[in-house]
Amino acid sequence: MQYTFSSRADRLKPSAIREILKFTSKPGIIPFAAGNPAAEAFPTAEIAEISSRLLHDSPIDALQYSVTEGYEPLRVHLKTYLSKQHGIGRDFDELIVTAGAQQVMSLVSTAFCDSGDEVLCEDPSFIGSLNAFRASGAKLIGIPMRPDGLDLEALEQALRVAKRPRFLYTIPNFQNPTGITMSRQKREQVYALAKKYGILILEDNPYGEIRFAGEDIPTIKSLDTEGLVIYAGSFSKVLSPGMRLGYCMAPAPIIQKLVALKQTQDVHTNIWAQQVAFAFMTEYDYAAHLERIRAIYRRKATLCMEQCEKTLSPEITFEPVEGGLFLWCRLPEYMDMNRFCTEAVREEQVAVVPGNAFSVDENAPSHCFRINYSTPSDEQIVAGLEKLKRVKEKLQ
Amino acid sequence: MQYTFSSRADRLKPSAIREILKFTSKPGIIPFAAGNPAAEAFPTAEIAEISSRLLHDSPIDALQYSVTEGYEPLRVHLKTYLSKQHGIGRDFDELIVTAGAQQVMSLVSTAFCDSGDEVLCEDPSFIGSLNAFRASGAKLIGIPMRPDGLDLEALEQALRVAKRPRFLYTIPNFQNPTGITMSRQKREQVYALAKKYGILILEDNPYGEIRFAGEDIPTIKSLDTEGLVIYAGSFSKVLSPGMRLGYCMAPAPIIQKLVALKQTQDVHTNIWAQQVAFAFMTEYDYAAHLERIRAIYRRKATLCMEQCEKTLSPEITFEPVEGGLFLWCRLPEYMDMNRFCTEAVREEQVAVVPGNAFSVDENAPSHCFRINYSTPSDEQIVAGLEKLKRVKEKLQ
Repeated sequence: MQYTFSSRADRLKPSAIREILKFTSKPGIIPFAAGNPAAEAFPTAEIAEISSRLLHDSPIDALQYSVTEGYEPLRVHLKTYLSKQHGIGRDFDELIVTAGAQQVMSLVSTAFCDSGDEVLCEDPSFIGSLNAFRASGAKLIGIPMRPDGLDLEALEQALRVAKRPRFLYTIPNFQNPTGITMSRQKREQVYALAKKYGILILEDNPYGEIRFAGEDIPTIKSLDTEGLVIYAGSFSKVLSPGMRLGYCMAPAPIIQKLVALKQTQDVHTNIWAQQVAFAFMTEYDYAAHLERIRAIYRRKATLCMEQCEKTLSPEITFEPVEGGLFLWCRLPEYMDMNRFCTEAVREEQVAVVPGNAFSVDENAPSHCFRINYSTPSDEQIVAGLEKLKRVKEKLQ
Repeated sequence: MQYTFSSRADRLKPSAIREILKFTSKPGIIPFAAGNPAAEAFPTAEIAEISSRLLHDSPIDALQYSVTEGYEPLRVHLKTYLSKQHGIGRDFDELIVTAGAQQVMSLVSTAFCDSGDEVLCEDPSFIGSLNAFRASGAKLIGIPMRPDGLDLEALEQALRVAKRPRFLYTIPNFQNPTGITMSRQKREQVYALAKKYGILILEDNPYGEIRFAGEDIPTIKSLDTEGLVIYAGSFSKVLSPGMRLGYCMAPAPIIQKLVALKQTQDVHTNIWAQQVAFAFMTEYDYAAHLERIRAIYRRKATLCMEQCEKTLSPEITFEPVEGGLFLWCRLPEYMDMNRFCTEAVREEQVAVVPGNAFSVDENAPSHCFRINYSTPSDEQIVAGLEKLKRVKEKLQ
């Protein structure tokens, strides 16, 4: 049988990262290509304790169908938390609980994009989000990155010429893959441009709460006086990714539409996970938990940067990071990036992600690769970078 | 702010059932409108036991990111189980674990439907599925139902005139909402028609394992020598709906596409739920569990049918059922269905679902309503039908 797929499904290739991830789960491979949060950051004892209580005291509530909007106590708590901690949420905003922030990308692009509509995004950007937009039929317009975030001139130029731009997708904190954080001034300028051109902003903030150095910068959503910003949050880095738990705060009419669409995707998010997250945020010292996680990432990032300095510099450069899970490394012009990544995995059993996996146009040339420092152990970080040094020396 | 949604999202109204469900969660309402499995059917002690062990012995495995295809041991076990129990699965088939069978509907329609493509479906049918197809931009073509399933002449006529029919959606066992089971002969005829016209069949079988009377009829998928049938299964009725766990078996090239699309929707299904289901199916007596559930539904369905006979007959009729969760009741021509349902909930605090909620054309007249017998307690079934009797007498 030959099967004919829809044109938007036809454009979709399995995620390069997911395919690499499968390969990297082979024993012996050093997993710089993954994006897994550090396993030691999971509050496993607390989750076991909460889960045991839920399943003994009120098992039906944890196992029965629930409402699409999300577990009401969690929704109420998240609204308060976001408001107090991040100044997010106005009277016109509402909140929906989702299956990870990934589902926010899927729901928002389905809600807004007809086939051929434009989505503007940072280039490079998180491939999972780009593929969600592609799956909705959207045309991606990549905006280059500067050290302080989006290139504003390129953004305004794109807004001027786009036919039906529906939203701008951005990860302002510790962007995946570049690690770049958008400056406060640029956040204000981006919001002003959105207002001027009447375009929505989809602000994805999975790493915001694991800043381990420097000062917090207000989210774009906190500037949102006009109802232009859709904010996506995630429990994947602060609690557990396997639970698949995220949320979206946006103006109520948008949330209503996302609710109707979520009904068609999965009815509601796993209710056990929602109840565990609620109990963990309200019955334990959540602030202390975040501090503990930040210390883990601070240690691993610092180690990784020190080792990169030792082994890859000066030929291979990287921007220091203050949060997130990734280092973005740049090869010298004369070094072939794909060959570097291929040699690394084949000859040295070290997996990194080739930079073009994150490009809007995967065929555009890239001189970068991404290193993840949260998945490998400290020993693997040291050993892996020694191995990458050998690859570098071979290609010099 | 005014927000402009995509045209496919614009067509989507919040599910009438979900909206009614919210209302019916108010205390004092008798919940004939719900679709919840009977709470006493959940194996709560076993789930608590398994979960406790998982979260103590291998918490990282239960909380870390996993692969999109699903938890490998569960996938392997499901393939064996489906093959042994239901004769389902050939060499060309593969399996993906999903967030409930609802996600199968969403993934399959996204994979196959461009805007305006036709999906053929039983009319009336499950609103959650119809809305998933609508959200993918598909045009729904309703095929009327006969007592033994789809009207074959109408189906062939629709296949003849449709421009780009992508698949036929059917719930052959204890269809929601009508309770109708497609006869064996008709399954063969429907498959032959699919072959003749080269159309795929999406077979949704959420209730197949809770048949409590009569003989099992082979699934359409078990007849699938040509790779035309996409089979959707669910753990919602046999384990827990709040876990959001389902699966899809279909030819490998289709599953590959569903995997790529699922990556964009939620990356993977909650891994804790997948591990719980695997342990429950393999370490406990699953056959005995199903027998225990069937006994619960047999008792509740029998009670409900007896009471309907006593209170609603002869004016209001229903077809006896041998499985599933629902009775489909037909009012006499002179009785206004919407008025009946409104009086029931307003004056008697009994919620049933108006039949047109399940129609392909919601504005088409309907004389039916749906009663769910799994959510209410036995006492509520008796009391609720006494109340419906009063509504009937008022409208006579």
